[in-house]
Amino acid sequence: MLAKFITLDGIDGAGKTTQLNVIRDWFAAQALPVLFTREPGGTPLGEALRALLLNPATQVSLHTETLLMFAARRQHLEDVILPALARGVSVVSDRFTDATFAYQGGGRGLPDGQIEILENWVQGSLKPDLTILLDVPLAVSLQRIERSREKDRFEQEEADFFTRVREAYLRRAAAAPERYAVVDSNRDKAVVRGEIEGVLDGVFGVDKAA
Amino acid sequence: MLAKFITLDGIDGAGKTTQLNVIRDWFAAQALPVLFTREPGGTPLGEALRALLLNPATQVSLHTETLLMFAARRQHLEDVILPALARGVSVVSDRFTDATFAYQGGGRGLPDGQIEILENWVQGSLKPDLTILLDVPLAVSLQRIERSREKDRFEQEEADFFTRVREAYLRRAAAAPERYAVVDSNRDKAVVRGEIEGVLDGVFGVDKAA
Repeated sequence: MLAKFITLDGIDGAGKTTQLNVIRDWFAAQALPVLFTREPGGTPLGEALRALLLNPATQVSLHTETLLMFAARRQHLEDVILPALARGVSVVSDRFTDATFAYQGGGRGLPDGQIEILENWVQGSLKPDLTILLDVPLAVSLQRIERSREKDRFEQEEADFFTRVREAYLRRAAAAPERYAVVDSNRDKAVVRGEIEGVLDGVFGVDKAA
Repeated sequence: MLAKFITLDGIDGAGKTTQLNVIRDWFAAQALPVLFTREPGGTPLGEALRALLLNPATQVSLHTETLLMFAARRQHLEDVILPALARGVSVVSDRFTDATFAYQGGGRGLPDGQIEILENWVQGSLKPDLTILLDVPLAVSLQRIERSREKDRFEQEEADFFTRVREAYLRRAAAAPERYAVVDSNRDKAVVRGEIEGVLDGVFGVDKAA
């Protein structure tokens, strides 16, 4: 069974933390080697840039922010993601390039074409084998963010920003349905878990009847 | 008289610090408004990235390094260079995009075409009005670096690296002679000063006979 590159994405408050645990449980149950990582971050350089980017005091323009996201991503690919896949270890990344299209693109208005230039420069033809896109109505997302203690620079944005971010995610998923699984995470936990397990079974060719 | 965007570049040890003072004196004598800045750096974000990039302990790949250089450059353009030029203030930058073509391109082997994609993404059609390229033989450069107390991540490179860097600078200058003044800085100080003053006179249309 080949190693797969899986990304988990969605607007803030969509429940990524909970579903990462579901994914973790699935890999443990299958006894498949897997590495969990996150963006921005994933490397010492990436974590330094993450701290810079999420800090509400950082003065950074939209274009600069996008370049920094892709700089962190390149190091993440070279040092973590590609070596793991080459060793036969699957990789699950908490956010990846879809987040750039959603936040810097949909949310802040950088044209998709501009982002695609950097995507191609940094990744070549590499794309995730599967992106699980967690989706919740905006009201649910905002309520969950509101409950979190301190908001980072992205979470301080307004409701119409998150509406544009969510729409950008859904647009990307609709444009490449073979690579995305859109999961409505505003449902009973057991139902969402079952759906994510089913998606992973499918990607890895696990036969439940066996 | 229009504000000009001037960059000073060249291999480590080519004498940039000394010639920056010559340029400073020239602007003072002409009573022309000018802003001196540097790359990487020039903004709070840029200085944070500069510290990261010059630190010998930083683990950063060639591609990531190049993206970070352009990220710092974009913020520098938006926050410092373009606003100054718009106010009629000339800008003198200690290093600019030529350094990326020389160090990451010539020195480390990233193809020019890859760098041009980022140059265009970050700068659009903006180029310096004048680049003063200080040139010295490699032996002089290495001797001057050797004398400096602590070497940064770039200065720790070997002689053949600096040979490639120097050649890349000279190649760029030869390809666009209308925009470059190549100054042999391995000569008597007064001669070099006179040559740089002459170049600035020419760019700003200063008539010495007046």
